[in-house]
Parts: sequence; structure tokens; C-alpha cells
Amino acid sequence: MFKLIKKEGNARRGEFHTVHGTVQTPAFQNVATCAAIKGGLSAYDLKEVDCQVQLCNTYHLHVRPGDKVIRELGGLHKFTGWDGPILTDSGGFQVFSLAGLRKIKEEGVTFNSHIDGKKIFMGPEESMQIQSNLGSTIAMAFDECVKNPAEYKYAKESIERTTRWLIRCKNEMERLNNLPDTLNKNQLLFGINQGATYDDLRVEHMKTIAELDLDGYAIGGLAVGEPKEDMYRIISAVEPFAPKDKIRYLMGVGTPGNIIEGVSRGVDLFDCVMPSRNARHGHLFTWNGIINLNNAKYQLDDTPIDTDCDCPTCQKFSRAYLHHLFKAKEILAMRLAVTHNLYFYNNLMKRIRDELDNGTFTEFKDKYVDLLDTRI
Amino acid sequence: MFKLIKKEGNARRGEFHTVHGTVQTPAFQNVATCAAIKGGLSAYDLKEVDCQVQLCNTYHLHVRPGDKVIRELGGLHKFTGWDGPILTDSGGFQVFSLAGLRKIKEEGVTFNSHIDGKKIFMGPEESMQIQSNLGSTIAMAFDECVKNPAEYKYAKESIERTTRWLIRCKNEMERLNNLPDTLNKNQLLFGINQGATYDDLRVEHMKTIAELDLDGYAIGGLAVGEPKEDMYRIISAVEPFAPKDKIRYLMGVGTPGNIIEGVSRGVDLFDCVMPSRNARHGHLFTWNGIINLNNAKYQLDDTPIDTDCDCPTCQKFSRAYLHHLFKAKEILAMRLAVTHNLYFYNNLMKRIRDELDNGTFTEFKDKYVDLLDTRI
Repeated sequence: MFKLIKKEGNARRGEFHTVHGTVQTPAFQNVATCAAIKGGLSAYDLKEVDCQVQLCNTYHLHVRPGDKVIRELGGLHKFTGWDGPILTDSGGFQVFSLAGLRKIKEEGVTFNSHIDGKKIFMGPEESMQIQSNLGSTIAMAFDECVKNPAEYKYAKESIERTTRWLIRCKNEMERLNNLPDTLNKNQLLFGINQGATYDDLRVEHMKTIAELDLDGYAIGGLAVGEPKEDMYRIISAVEPFAPKDKIRYLMGVGTPGNIIEGVSRGVDLFDCVMPSRNARHGHLFTWNGIINLNNAKYQLDDTPIDTDCDCPTCQKFSRAYLHHLFKAKEILAMRLAVTHNLYFYNNLMKRIRDELDNGTFTEFKDKYVDLLDTRI
Repeated sequence: MFKLIKKEGNARRGEFHTVHGTVQTPAFQNVATCAAIKGGLSAYDLKEVDCQVQLCNTYHLHVRPGDKVIRELGGLHKFTGWDGPILTDSGGFQVFSLAGLRKIKEEGVTFNSHIDGKKIFMGPEESMQIQSNLGSTIAMAFDECVKNPAEYKYAKESIERTTRWLIRCKNEMERLNNLPDTLNKNQLLFGINQGATYDDLRVEHMKTIAELDLDGYAIGGLAVGEPKEDMYRIISAVEPFAPKDKIRYLMGVGTPGNIIEGVSRGVDLFDCVMPSRNARHGHLFTWNGIINLNNAKYQLDDTPIDTDCDCPTCQKFSRAYLHHLFKAKEILAMRLAVTHNLYFYNNLMKRIRDELDNGTFTEFKDKYVDLLDTRI
């Protein structure tokens, strides 16, 4: 599945093979929360912004339209029109951040839907069943995502439960993949490393889940309130214990600088709502830093967002036109801006892969790691 | 400019030649109020929905971003990326419907911007200057659009003033087109017939403006509150007095049925926000009538909006997916729906032209005039 092609320091250039196509890594997953990219992009537009993996949210799709509806319609690939790899998260993160009052037991979590308040139970088996109904390429294990800072004792108990849940996820996914009417008999399962900001808990947990021979390993529960130095320290601490022959995924991260730092510490896969969310507010990434298109100085600027960018937006429209569209609150503003930012992120990853291929990633990192996060 | 190819009854099949390309008529103009189609379509997408003419609103663009800004950026064609014909309205309709307190004098109208309340004066000369700055293909004369029902006496005084304004528009447009730095030295000017719902005023006004040898003739002030029978009666009343060798434009109309009726009475050009506005609310046109995608019966419907439709939306997505996107309030819902409805309207016009070419328009009208407006 994962083939390591080359290393530069701890940074890895690889390929991840799936039944829905091969992902060149390091790669960034484009987030289509409710089976659509926010800002008006379709799965067909994702091809034009060089997306490799579409990420959809299990919790959101379970509550609306319902995973059984999507299964009856042929699964997420047919529903959205995307034929490449799709990763679904486990629903765990949303259960712990979005849903109303919740109650955690050994079996799983009872919570209220954020749409209609309806009481829902989700445990490892339910999460696997939902993701099986969605028919994604990669399912994520159902875990507890603890907010930082967390009590040491609570974090320790939580990862022990998350490990027990992971074993149940693995067993259930095996059972589901062997059902005769499953949508994807090769559905993959990634485990998730937790342990708050405690290096010893993180390492102990990674060692434990590494033994389960999963299809990939994620680091979760970061970028949820802790300083970025903590995030980088934890990645470096657990990396030696993540299986070398498996893909590694840093969940929900992050800025271009965060991604470059993550790659340099051995991470292969990322996802974040930042490019699309920032775009919808007029904040655009360029190779010289971040610009705010709402700024009056762009009213008469007939250059593209980034003169070095080949995205569909930069090929056709000026900063002045986008500035006007944002001021006039036209939906087209969001669509053109999201198109640019996703293209930027996907091509940042391509650039990183090229630098790794050329053995020049370290120089690239030194030049761009701070520059790309700068507001200009 | 206008070439009449064929007639069937009063219905006309023609061609309208402009410096920005030829329009096959009857034609529907696609409304990009603030220099963008509401719902997230760009000028490039208009090509994919077979649009022939983009319509932009003078009033909206004058208040934001300002016509001088657009002129400095090279005009509407460069600003939006649309290289075909663009028609700009005069601003008159918005001054009388959108703007705050207003005061009409012989010189023009003083009103308050609906954006920031700023006091603005617009008369015939100002309207021509703004449209010249926008660099549209076709400018509309500055007129008073009287709400129906209107007092006879007021309507009579109003059309007399509108005629005096039209002469000033013509003189000012000639002056502007001859300026050395004009954006479009061939900018066309259409006059607008008014007279509320009074046939004698309408006819008298059409006779008067027909003598001014303008580039086209519009019928304005309809579909503003009167029964549709009044609209049809008035079109039939004024049609004999509109120059045969000039294009005729029925402003702000309408449903597919209204358009078919308009064509049968000798109208060549239409515009309306209905297809895009209805689409944004989930109301989609099909060749069997109008469907409401919000309806629960579409949740598991994996057929396209219209099985007979070749639009980008129907080629790629199901009613079930669009139903979900509307429920989830995803912007993509609006974009895909607007794409379909504009394609439907533009191809309704193509179908009408084909029927006229084949001499079968009357049969087509009998079959579809009511059916297309039916809610199913």
C-alpha cells in the first residue's frame, strides 16, 4: 500500500496505493464536509485544483442525509462524482466538538445531533458501519479526541479506551469488508494516536497501536488549542515508533508552515479546512505570503492573486474583480477564492514532493516555512 | 445590425450583429447584476450554458465599485472576462424601485444609494456617461419606469418627459462615442417604450420614438404588477408601430410561457432574473414543468433534474445530490441549480429558433406555453 521512495532527513517522499488510485505523498486532503467543498466547488472542480484525496465527514453525513441514504445511492463516489480516493473521518472529533450534551461509556458515546437535537449513539462498531455505508477508500478509527490542555490521568484513561475501541474497529471493519454486499471490500482502516500533550502517553500509545498492523497511522488531537511547539515536539517524539512502512497522517493541520514542519518530521498526509475557510473570508495564499482581498488597495489592482499561480482563478480574473465580488457579497467571490487556495495547497504539496525528489527540501523549508504564513 | 431571417405569424427569426459578436434571435439575456451571475457563475461559465448576451446593471455598478473604477480597469468585458455582447440597463428601473427617497425633475432624478444612503443625481447624460464608462455593447435609454396601475394623467406626462430624455440620451451617446478615448466607439442605444397599461399612450409613444432611428426598441414598464393579459395586449398593440428592421426587447420578462407568448407577438430579446432566482430557491425548470428540489420525494432520486437536458449539472449530478446540497445549505446547490436553469432558458430560445427555422413554432407554442410554467 505505502511505498517509501526517498528520504531527506526525516521527510519522506512516497506513494500510497488504493483501489481508487495512487496518492503521491506528501499530500493534502481537500475537505468536503457535507459531501461538497464549502464555497461552491464540486468534485469535478477538485480535479482542476490538483486534489488527490477528498475528505468527507462521517458525523455530518450520518445526521444528514444519512449514511443509509448515501449507501442506497451507491456510496460517496457516485453521490459526489469523485472517482479518486476518499477518506472519511470517524465522527469522533465532531462528537466531541460539535454535538450537544454527550455521555461517554465503554460501549461508545451518546450525544445529540447539532441539526435537530435527536439522541444518537455512536461506538466503534457504529462508526465502522457508517463509514462502510459511505463506501470511502479509507475509514478512520473511532477515538476520543481530548481537548488540550488535558489532565494527565484523564488522558491516560482515554487512550486506553481508545486502544480498546481501535481493536473493536479493526474487527468490525474486517467483518464489514467480508459482507457480500459491501460497497468497498478493500476499505482501509487507519488508527489514531492520542495522548494529549504528554510525550510518554503519546509514545506508549503509538507503540501499542503500531502492533495492530493497520493500513495507516494518524496523529490526532493536535492543533486543538496547544502551542505549535508542543505539536512539533509530539510529532518528533512519536515518529520513531510509527511503522516505517505505513503512511502517517497529521489530522486537521494546518498552515503552509505547519505542513512544511510536519513533512520535515516524517508526516505524509494532511487535511485542514483552513484554505477553504480563509478563502471564503478573502484571505488568499500566495508564494509571498497571505493577502487580504478586502483591503482597499486591491480596488484597482488588475494583476492576478498570485502572478506565479496557474490556477483557474489566477488565469482568468484580477484582484480588482475579486475585491469587487467580496465587497458586493457575490457567491462567485468565495468560489474563485476557494479554487485558488485549494490549488495553492495542492501545489504546495507538489512543490514539496519535487524538492524531495531533487534532494533540496531542506533549502526549500528554510526559505518558505515562515514566509508562506506571513500576512502581507 | 438587425437582420430579419424569417417570420411565422408575428414571430421573428433574426440575427443581431454587434462589434462583440452576432446574437441569434429570439434570445434571452443572462443577468449579471453586479458583474457576476448570482449563485456563483462566472462569465466563463456563461459560455457553458449557451448564453449569448450578458446583462449588467448600471445602477448597481455605479454605486459599487463605481463606473470610473471599471473604466480604469478596461471596461466590463475585461473586468468580467466576457467577450460577447453586453447590455447595460439605464439605471432608471433601479432608481425607481430600489433607491431611497427620490425627486424627479426635468434634468433627472436625485436619489439615495441603497448601499450607503449617499445622495446621487442621475439624468439622461449621466446614465449615458456611466454606460460609456462601463463600455457595454448596448446602452439603454434613461427612462421613467411607472408602477402599474398608474394614473392616466401621470403616465402621459411621464412618457412625454421620457421622450425628451431619450433625445438627450441620443445626443449624449453620439458625443461620447466620438470621444477619442471612448472604450466602445460603436456603443449602441436602445429606446424604451412606456405608457403604463394605456394602449393609446403606448402606441403614441412608440410612434414618436420610432422616428428617432435608434439601434433597437424595448418595451419597458411591464411585468411590474399588471395581469399578464394586459402585458400581452400591450405588446400586440405597439408591435405594428415598432420599426420592422430593428430588434425588439421586452424588458424583465419572464416565465417560459411569457417568453413564448412574447415571441409569438414579435419580440426578439428578453431578460429576467427568474431562472437564477428560482434556482437559488431550488425551483428548477424542466421540459415537463417546474420541480421543487426541496421536496422530500427527491431524497433517493438518482436521475438528473431533467433527463432530456445536456447541461453540465444534469450530465454529472442527481436530484438526490442536489436535494442534499439544498438541505445542507451548501453554496454548490445554488451554483448547480443556476447552471441548469440558465442553460434551460438559453436552450428554450434555441428550441424556439429551431422551430421558427422549421416553420413549426405555432405547434411548439401550443404544446409548451402552459406546460413549462406548470409546477409538478
